[in-house]
Amino acid sequence: MADTIDFFFDFSSPYGYLASVRLEPIASKHGREIVWRPYLMGAAMKVSGRGALVSHPLLNDYTRLDLDRCARRYEIPFTLPDPFPVQTVAACRAFYWTTDQGLNAGKRLAQQLLRAYFVDNRNISDPEVVVSVGADTGLDSQGLKTSLTDPVIKERLRHETDRAITLGVFGSPFIIVDGEPFWGNDRLDEVDHWLSTGGW
Amino acid sequence: MADTIDFFFDFSSPYGYLASVRLEPIASKHGREIVWRPYLMGAAMKVSGRGALVSHPLLNDYTRLDLDRCARRYEIPFTLPDPFPVQTVAACRAFYWTTDQGLNAGKRLAQQLLRAYFVDNRNISDPEVVVSVGADTGLDSQGLKTSLTDPVIKERLRHETDRAITLGVFGSPFIIVDGEPFWGNDRLDEVDHWLSTGGW
Repeated sequence: MADTIDFFFDFSSPYGYLASVRLEPIASKHGREIVWRPYLMGAAMKVSGRGALVSHPLLNDYTRLDLDRCARRYEIPFTLPDPFPVQTVAACRAFYWTTDQGLNAGKRLAQQLLRAYFVDNRNISDPEVVVSVGADTGLDSQGLKTSLTDPVIKERLRHETDRAITLGVFGSPFIIVDGEPFWGNDRLDEVDHWLSTGGW
Repeated sequence: MADTIDFFFDFSSPYGYLASVRLEPIASKHGREIVWRPYLMGAAMKVSGRGALVSHPLLNDYTRLDLDRCARRYEIPFTLPDPFPVQTVAACRAFYWTTDQGLNAGKRLAQQLLRAYFVDNRNISDPEVVVSVGADTGLDSQGLKTSLTDPVIKERLRHETDRAITLGVFGSPFIIVDGEPFWGNDRLDEVDHWLSTGGW
């Protein structure tokens, strides 16, 4: 089987959400599986010293316009949520607890959490919202709730975030294909071309 | 005649250089003229509070890799110069003095300055290098040299930079088509698509 594609993202990243929708058909076309790897981008930002686009004058207005334009172009339902950005610790922990029970269950939860935040404007920093979204995907609510404060899952998320930074990941989306890193929703065509050509 | 395309860039910006090469055929295809608008991106960075990509840990390594990869993909000769980045006051002043004598002369100078820096590794922060590149494009050396300290040209550059920031420009390349802003070399396909469709 062909190697997997590592898809790093932060649950609070709108470009990460847009890329999560667009990457699926690209991976399918090339017969590749995606490994979803949510992490705490804030930790990487502490290392890089680079903050969110919307936290800067001038960039804020442009970024909002660009996000809407990208969503329209690819016909992806999207509204910048309020509040934005939010803490994603609960969403990440829920993901890792779920994915340990099955990659597909983890992926389904991730997709629904992103959708809850970026389409339905539900505040996924709230553990109760995370549990509710999880229940809607068929997960055991009590088990999911307990996982959010489970020391093993806490440590798992810390490890995944540290590992991402060690690999050079700093943004969202950040995609690694056969060792080659691609940062940004605007690099998906490059990912597609890389998979088609084997690199250039 | 169709409206022009405003192409804002900083002479020290590698993505600006790559875009300067790629934008020409796109504009031609749509029967549009490009108005080259170099400015001092450092002034915009003071407003936005956002520094150069290569000034950050993690981003530095990735950006160097991405630049080389973009250049290879579009077969554009490119080497990240040393020193990098550099002051571009002299290059900008030379440009505005030249462009006042003819848009084409200005464009030719801009192209040759970018080429001198990003292909031949010549330090275009040095006024003598700027004058030498200008002479090679057929400009009057003495006139060009004098322009670099001319108060009128100094004010002209200040005005152009202020105007760019007022228009919301903060990066390089930054392209405005029919009032629509596009930031980044990675938005050239969007520019092309926008020109093809009239927007979406």
